[in-house]
Parts: sequence; C-alpha cells; structure tokens
Amino acid sequence: MNDVIQTIMNHRSIRSFQDKALSDEHIQTLIESAQAASTSSFVQAYTIIGIKDPLRKAKLARISGNQSHVITNGHFLVFCLDLHRHELSTEMEGLNPSDLQQALESTEMFMVGVIDAALAAQNTSIAAESLGLGICYIGGLRNNLDDVSALLKTPNRVIPLFGLSIGYPTKINDQKQRLPLANIYHEEEYISDDELLKSQLKQYNADISAYYAKRTNGSRAERWTEGIASKLKDTKRLYLKQFLESKQLPLN
Amino acid sequence: MNDVIQTIMNHRSIRSFQDKALSDEHIQTLIESAQAASTSSFVQAYTIIGIKDPLRKAKLARISGNQSHVITNGHFLVFCLDLHRHELSTEMEGLNPSDLQQALESTEMFMVGVIDAALAAQNTSIAAESLGLGICYIGGLRNNLDDVSALLKTPNRVIPLFGLSIGYPTKINDQKQRLPLANIYHEEEYISDDELLKSQLKQYNADISAYYAKRTNGSRAERWTEGIASKLKDTKRLYLKQFLESKQLPLN
Repeated sequence: MNDVIQTIMNHRSIRSFQDKALSDEHIQTLIESAQAASTSSFVQAYTIIGIKDPLRKAKLARISGNQSHVITNGHFLVFCLDLHRHELSTEMEGLNPSDLQQALESTEMFMVGVIDAALAAQNTSIAAESLGLGICYIGGLRNNLDDVSALLKTPNRVIPLFGLSIGYPTKINDQKQRLPLANIYHEEEYISDDELLKSQLKQYNADISAYYAKRTNGSRAERWTEGIASKLKDTKRLYLKQFLESKQLPLN
Repeated sequence: MNDVIQTIMNHRSIRSFQDKALSDEHIQTLIESAQAASTSSFVQAYTIIGIKDPLRKAKLARISGNQSHVITNGHFLVFCLDLHRHELSTEMEGLNPSDLQQALESTEMFMVGVIDAALAAQNTSIAAESLGLGICYIGGLRNNLDDVSALLKTPNRVIPLFGLSIGYPTKINDQKQRLPLANIYHEEEYISDDELLKSQLKQYNADISAYYAKRTNGSRAERWTEGIASKLKDTKRLYLKQFLESKQLPLN
C-alpha cells in the first residue's frame, strides 16, 4: 500500500481540533489541490469561501446544529456550486441572458456543479489529511441556506452545498466499518436480487451493532438499517427546492 | 510537497489507454478507497457498477458520444446515486413505505446521494493515479440515462451519475491551467464586485487562448468564456428532470 492509498484508507472524520490556525501556505495548497480535480467540460462550476472570522464561524455553527468543530478549528471552508461565473462569462461574450437561462436552470447544470464541487472538496480533504490535519464535512449548513447565503453574501446561481472543518486534531476516533464491498460494488449490472442485498445488510447490521456496543460500553447498539429508517422518518430540509428556485435554479 | 499532494497536483484526464485489464486486486483497492470517503450521516448513498464486458462498454461508449476510452481501458466504473438500499432498509425495519416517501423524494436526499457518490469517485481517482493508472470521468453517460439504466438494470431510486474510465495510459496530455485561485477562492464573503471577477476572467482568457494556440499550432485559440458561452447556448440533457421523476426522484 503506497502513501496515497494509506492516507485515503486512514480517513476518519475529526470533530475536535486545536485552536490553531492553518498557515496561509497550507490554505493555498489545499485550494490548489481542490482546483486540480477533474471538472465537467472544464466548467469549474464551484467557489470556495474560506472563513477565519470567529463570529462568522459561530453563526455557521449555530446554523449547523451547534457543532463545536465549526467554531474551533484551523480553517473553515464552504463549498458552493457556482453558475454566477458562467453568467458573467456569457455577458462578457455579448450574449443575451435569455439565451442561456434554459441551460443554467437545468437539472443537468445543477448536477454538474454539485459534482464539480464535491470532487474539489475531496481533493482538499485528502491533501489536508496528508499534512496531518483532520477534516469533517458539515452538511448541517443545509439546515438553513437562506441564512448561510445572507451571511456569506452569495448571489443568484450560487448554492452553498456543505462546509469543511479543517484543523489539527485533538481526538482521533475509531474508523466506522463501511457497507460490505459486495453490497456497494456490483458487476456488469445492478444486483436484482433484493433478498441477497437484504442478507448483506443483515450481516452489516450485526457488525455495526457490535461496533456501537463496544464504543459505548453497551449503551448504544443500533442496527445500520435502524439508523437509516429513523433518519428517513424524520424528513429534513424540505425548503431546499424553494431555496434553489429563489436563487434562480429551479432544476428544470 | 508530499507524495499525496504531488499525486493530486499531477492530475490530468487520460483519454487513451492500453488494452490491458486491471487486476482484481487493483479493482478491490479502488473500491475500498471509494468506501473510505466521508458519507453524509453514514448513509453511503451510492453504488458502483464495474463493467468488463466489451459489448457493454461499446454500448456505453455509443451513449457517451463515441468516446473510444470508454471501450479501450483497464476497467470501467459507473457511479450511481442509490436510495434503493435505503428503501430496503426501512422495509427491513418494518416501516410503511409511505412514511419515507417524502424524504426519499426530496432535493436534500438527491444532493446527499450526488455528493456521496462524487466523494467516493474522487477517492477512486486519486488511488488509481497513485498506482500509475490514468482516469477520465465520463459525464457523457447523462446523454441518455434511460438507455444506461436499461443496460445496467438499475431499479427505481438509483441514478447513474457518471462513468470513470481507468487504465494504463498510452498518452499523457499537458495539464490545463485552472481559473485564477483568487477567482474561485473568496475570503469571508462571496466577492460582490462583478467587475473584479470579470477582470480575473479576462486574464484567464488570455492564458487559456495561449494554451490552446500552443497545443494546436495556432489552429484553436478560444477564450475560456467563449467556450462556456458556446456550451450554455447549446442546452443539453433537458430530459433529466423527467428521468429523475420516472425513477421516483421528483426532487421535492
């Protein structure tokens, strides 16, 4: 196993950081790493907003459900889908805005932007971990994108997708075992046998139960499917469709 | 610069591969690397379908606009957003399907799945590159997801997002210069000065024009904004919204 694969395999989310800022040189390396990722048809449809201001971090932490590692970390990044740049580009080329509205407002361009931003973010994460830093993705920003957008002054056609806390770890958690490889990796065709898929999940449930029981001295032992079911019963963030529309991304 | 960051920075898409299959050991390492990525609330909302069958690859190549590297490569992966697994999970937990329909069909869960799949794919890409392999993302699969879905037998709540050609490179291209860092990285707030953003794009246009002119001995020299404008004038894949609805993902 080479250093790169070792870094990738060694990942765990870190939720406790020293109060020690990243150097500007480190930040630059992390952003350049993000930019080195593949991008659909070279559109580079994302923007990264870096947050150092403690007050702003505190506001983002409140939005994200009071996660302390959004406040105390070495640096905080917000990855945004960005089609505003492409609107400016077409303006520079003398096009009529109505000529591109259909493309900009399509589900396709939304998918392009989300994928571009996520590929960039994962490069940043791996680069950070290779430098001995820890990371944690913060999907909790999506609890209230109206507030995030107001705080970061993002214009139309720009959607904050998630945050990334980065810093010097103070506590390293155990790794959480992933789904059986055979459950997420299919050959030639999607596995059509639901009973087979369920039997894999059943085995996985036993492993995850045991993991939680060990980590909590028996006080928690839920199955993976139990966690999923309870998450899905509690529907979250149904305002997102309206938020996207308000930012001129109706996903046609 | 450590090995990991060097691998990340050295990325270029490879569009020409030897006709030499990856070993099963390499494939396993690449899938395990994908699985090591962060996943929103541990939902692991993706499935990867590996394609070795030359006939199937040829069909996928045709859908993708006849890209030869979809046929000739060491392995081909299709990354799918997958919420079918979560439907099975709730069934295993004895829930009524109608209890989770709202969550499964939400824009939020769609974003979770797309982000999860993209983070996993980027881990696979970096791991592959660290092994001396090359990669190319194939967004062209989205030209016709009805055909992709029929070919790979993906069920409802599963959306093929993009392909990944992986293999032993026969030709290494130059790297394409990315947007100026100051254009994609903003501090504290989104840069509100459109004239500043445009002046950065103007500088970038000059760099990209010069790059194309050099690579093609002067026969191509388009600006970046020109490429973007021409891409956006030609709206593509407007059927995607309907496709998602047909797979029970209306993005409410």
